[in-house]
Amino acid sequence: MARLKGFQELTPIDEALRRFFESFVIRKPDAESVPLDSILHRVLAERLLVKENIPRVDRSAVDGYALKAKFTIGASQVKPKALELTDATEVDPRQARRLWTGNPLPKGSDAVVMLENTKESSGEVEVWAPVTPWENVSRKGEDFREGTVALEDGTRLTPQHIGLLAALGLSEVKVFRKPTIAVLATGNELVEPGEKKRGDQIFNSNSHVISAMCRELGAEPVDLGVVGDDATQIKQKLVMGVASDAIMTSGGTSVGLPDLVPETVNKLGKPGVVVHGVAMRPGMPTALAVVQGKPVLILPGNPVAVMVGFEVFARPLLFRLLGLRYVETRPIIRAVMTKKIASALGRRTFVRVRVTRKDCEYSAEPVSARGSSLISTMTNSNGFVIVPKNREGLAEGETVTVHLFAGVQEADSNV
Amino acid sequence: MARLKGFQELTPIDEALRRFFESFVIRKPDAESVPLDSILHRVLAERLLVKENIPRVDRSAVDGYALKAKFTIGASQVKPKALELTDATEVDPRQARRLWTGNPLPKGSDAVVMLENTKESSGEVEVWAPVTPWENVSRKGEDFREGTVALEDGTRLTPQHIGLLAALGLSEVKVFRKPTIAVLATGNELVEPGEKKRGDQIFNSNSHVISAMCRELGAEPVDLGVVGDDATQIKQKLVMGVASDAIMTSGGTSVGLPDLVPETVNKLGKPGVVVHGVAMRPGMPTALAVVQGKPVLILPGNPVAVMVGFEVFARPLLFRLLGLRYVETRPIIRAVMTKKIASALGRRTFVRVRVTRKDCEYSAEPVSARGSSLISTMTNSNGFVIVPKNREGLAEGETVTVHLFAGVQEADSNV
Repeated sequence: MARLKGFQELTPIDEALRRFFESFVIRKPDAESVPLDSILHRVLAERLLVKENIPRVDRSAVDGYALKAKFTIGASQVKPKALELTDATEVDPRQARRLWTGNPLPKGSDAVVMLENTKESSGEVEVWAPVTPWENVSRKGEDFREGTVALEDGTRLTPQHIGLLAALGLSEVKVFRKPTIAVLATGNELVEPGEKKRGDQIFNSNSHVISAMCRELGAEPVDLGVVGDDATQIKQKLVMGVASDAIMTSGGTSVGLPDLVPETVNKLGKPGVVVHGVAMRPGMPTALAVVQGKPVLILPGNPVAVMVGFEVFARPLLFRLLGLRYVETRPIIRAVMTKKIASALGRRTFVRVRVTRKDCEYSAEPVSARGSSLISTMTNSNGFVIVPKNREGLAEGETVTVHLFAGVQEADSNV
Repeated sequence: MARLKGFQELTPIDEALRRFFESFVIRKPDAESVPLDSILHRVLAERLLVKENIPRVDRSAVDGYALKAKFTIGASQVKPKALELTDATEVDPRQARRLWTGNPLPKGSDAVVMLENTKESSGEVEVWAPVTPWENVSRKGEDFREGTVALEDGTRLTPQHIGLLAALGLSEVKVFRKPTIAVLATGNELVEPGEKKRGDQIFNSNSHVISAMCRELGAEPVDLGVVGDDATQIKQKLVMGVASDAIMTSGGTSVGLPDLVPETVNKLGKPGVVVHGVAMRPGMPTALAVVQGKPVLILPGNPVAVMVGFEVFARPLLFRLLGLRYVETRPIIRAVMTKKIASALGRRTFVRVRVTRKDCEYSAEPVSARGSSLISTMTNSNGFVIVPKNREGLAEGETVTVHLFAGVQEADSNV
């Protein structure tokens, strides 16, 4: 039955997350071998060991002359030290050998003096500056030491990691299969973008946002489309959805309309809905459930609540499904509020702000304290300020912590 | 000929960028129509206007009763105001109509009182709290107003933008074609990952890093592979490369070896090399050139110099080739240095740091002031501190600005 007067009890966010993650098991994702040029932002599925020292041997880090450092003590432009040039694979204490950057050091040498600090003439080189032992040398194993761990499994691969993998000689590595997320929009009023809209219908945007957010984190959305507020249709879609690693729905959770999605979920077996009604704003009617062992995130129909609910519940869920070793937090900065804003006691409030930077100072302007359901408040903002549930609003001029979800522009940043 | 004693003159970074961007013309990229589910992070190629108000009409933002706000003045739980319930499309001043979130407001009403603040019984509703005009109403056009600009061309599309496009009813939009970047690695010592390595050979990592960094920004790398230090082969590859929108090479720019890539570029016509030798560290031997109207970024062989050179020169180049309206800056935070570091006067120095966060305070630990060529210094760090050329190093405890290129972890951030 419809609960007409709101939720009996609102679950605090941390408690909701705890209950959710206690009610299903996430198995380690399967791995697949993928070539180097396709692994960007994928999650490494194997712990990689260094098989060979990098550098393999001591190498020169500069263009110059390999020699024994001891011999250069006291060398200066006024009192240069002269050494005999050699091409041999071993240098005597009074000899030097010409090297390019990257060349292996000859035996007997323990430093390289830079070209700029030398003068070569007729089989000799004058050294104008002293070097210390191993100066200008890339030591054997200095970059990666044989037998050590190069990268842990569960690491999201950046371009820098790809450089590392290439340097180790790997042309492909094992990464976790992308988790699949079934995405469903519910609501009689919805019609898909591109279709003909009639009367009071509105275009479905929520499932496209959820899909894009999944994709951004490296998951594979499976679009289940749109269904009306109809228990039979919703059930059919949910049954299809359990083939994926998780299900995310929007709509049909408000206290006004019958709680169709949560109720339908409950008919599909235990444990069903484990949380319904969260002490947050927006996103209060969010529900968390488990169907046939698969996590189900039931988001409200309000587009902003969908984005906030995704932030709070879908991100930590996806990090686990992706096989990540760590939580990826948004970039966090400190900014000064340009206006005061109000918030309700007893709920964690997500205030959308537009952050701008002038020199190194950030300021945060609240975007429409009104219209909590407006999509434009999300496209006009680039960060959240989280007001704890024991506070009523934020003061003008207050320094706050902002979680950035989009880039910050400077006044003079036009291309 | 090889310049054995270093560069005659080092060009400051800003001057190098200016000269580079003055020496070729970037045309507006071609556009292509792409469906909604494939546009994430692409760059919008058209200015989109709002064709119809969103909301199309005044709608209720909550579950409750539509009424005339004026009538609720002074209403309280002790002294409720009673209204007659109606189902008509127009309400009289002493009537109210039951609405769900999203329902259009009936004529004659100008506010919605929330369900929680009412009690319904036998054809009447008691209102326990006053509402102001338009309270709990999403006004017609409040989210997007007909005729205004919804999104400017040159915008990189986030999930939030995708929500906006869907809400406007668009199932596909025009985005700029991805720019293509020809990527070449040069060096006799190089062998591709996965191939057999002999003696002093090392695995090519630079071109894989460059490709991944291009991909990360939304460009399409075209892998030209590896060539030795051979002018004929390099020329062949460069000639192939001009079919792309830009060329990026690594290796063959040091002052020790003949400047093979810059010299070969100069033989391919005017203007050729416009900058060679930049007042930065690492990355000093970087060269900037134009071949047959196409920009060429000639990076050194040192893997860290490649990453820094990409940051400084390739990013602004790609932003232009992508058709972006603005520069995308890295997230910038303020952090406290945990150790002092030295840097040379007269060069802008890019210090790699490992940033960690404790509560809201960031600290930055320099990663290997030594070993400027070590890949591990890039995988172990997550940000750059830029030391201006008029400073010698940074002090311990100094507050610095860090440009983050990878995520920051907190001590307790394990999944």
